[in-house]
Amino acid sequence: MKVPVVRNILEANERLAEGNRRIFRQAGLFVINLMSGPGAGKTSLLERTIDALRHEIHIGVIEGDIQSSYDAERIGQKGVQVVQLNTGGSCHLDGNMIQSSLDALDLENLDLLMVENVGNLVCPAEFNLGEDMKAMILSVAEGDDKPLKYPVMFQESRVLLINKIDLLPYVDCDVGKMKERALQLNANLEIFELSCRTGEGLEPWADWLRQQVSGRKAEVYGAKT
Amino acid sequence: MKVPVVRNILEANERLAEGNRRIFRQAGLFVINLMSGPGAGKTSLLERTIDALRHEIHIGVIEGDIQSSYDAERIGQKGVQVVQLNTGGSCHLDGNMIQSSLDALDLENLDLLMVENVGNLVCPAEFNLGEDMKAMILSVAEGDDKPLKYPVMFQESRVLLINKIDLLPYVDCDVGKMKERALQLNANLEIFELSCRTGEGLEPWADWLRQQVSGRKAEVYGAKT
Repeated sequence: MKVPVVRNILEANERLAEGNRRIFRQAGLFVINLMSGPGAGKTSLLERTIDALRHEIHIGVIEGDIQSSYDAERIGQKGVQVVQLNTGGSCHLDGNMIQSSLDALDLENLDLLMVENVGNLVCPAEFNLGEDMKAMILSVAEGDDKPLKYPVMFQESRVLLINKIDLLPYVDCDVGKMKERALQLNANLEIFELSCRTGEGLEPWADWLRQQVSGRKAEVYGAKT
Repeated sequence: MKVPVVRNILEANERLAEGNRRIFRQAGLFVINLMSGPGAGKTSLLERTIDALRHEIHIGVIEGDIQSSYDAERIGQKGVQVVQLNTGGSCHLDGNMIQSSLDALDLENLDLLMVENVGNLVCPAEFNLGEDMKAMILSVAEGDDKPLKYPVMFQESRVLLINKIDLLPYVDCDVGKMKERALQLNANLEIFELSCRTGEGLEPWADWLRQQVSGRKAEVYGAKT
């Protein structure tokens, strides 16, 4: 019996992701799947992004973690819509988990949905959630060799956020080399260098997000007229 | 048809791990399965450990990566036996991969085998390789909340190496809280605080390894006499 199991799992996931994508489009939502290894700064980036954009853009967050609701509590303090998804052991989110969380969100009143995936530089990249794009964070403390060792996430992402640049004087990381290696894997990567701790470099990222969200709005409302 | 697939995978792995364990015991080897998220410092720890112990202990290394041989090349420069295992996509090593790499090592001339797992704070913890113990590295740059979010690795490990303590003045990480949360998950954790960059704190870890290796030797040669 020939059963290509992994492919079937990915295909089944793709159908669910497609369903989510339709729902998001209908609501005029722009959706980002935010991925990184543990502790690269996904939740801190969300906090900073919410602070920068909350008065102009309605932001919702889906927090993915194996267990705990620690991150959702952090985000909840910002006064935005947030749902915690616990994967119960699984090292990545999938289309089904996202689907099951959508009832808990008022999508019609959101412009931007940011999904924080489980901290893992490997598996999340293989599972579409119905997002518009994948964005990954890499901390300079992780080193400039990461593109060599975890290529898929760099290939699947549209955006690379190089975080913790305030640590550059204290770590052995060549950001030029990091970017060069990332761009060799994916020449279309949009790269931002920032520090969620100091706030340095946040503005270009916030601007870029503003453009994506207003682009989506124009698309949706343009299509309606 | 009721097929508990995940359990079968883990059980099949357990048999392979047990086979490896017998081989390691026969060779009088002490074996460590070294795990962490990406960029926490596994390879740097290996380099420092080899520097500290190479003149008294014969060390071999199995390098696990999804792809590339970057880490094995780093370790090879230290003049010890090293094998690179490429998982080709899988986010963790397993018993079968280790078994298939053993022919490339002269086990009879090793005292200590260190296996560097794929950088991932989730999946590697669930797959025994035949090791004597699991050791995990957590960098202070990853933050003190990691035990809350990735509990299994803390529960499965015998040793927690808190790395990059030279960065403590520049990151928001409370090492006391990190240790407290880790010990709540696993009161038997042996904890070392160190910096593979500066070398600070390496000696207690090297001493502890010396003891483990000589304990294994005493066991094996004691049993033979």
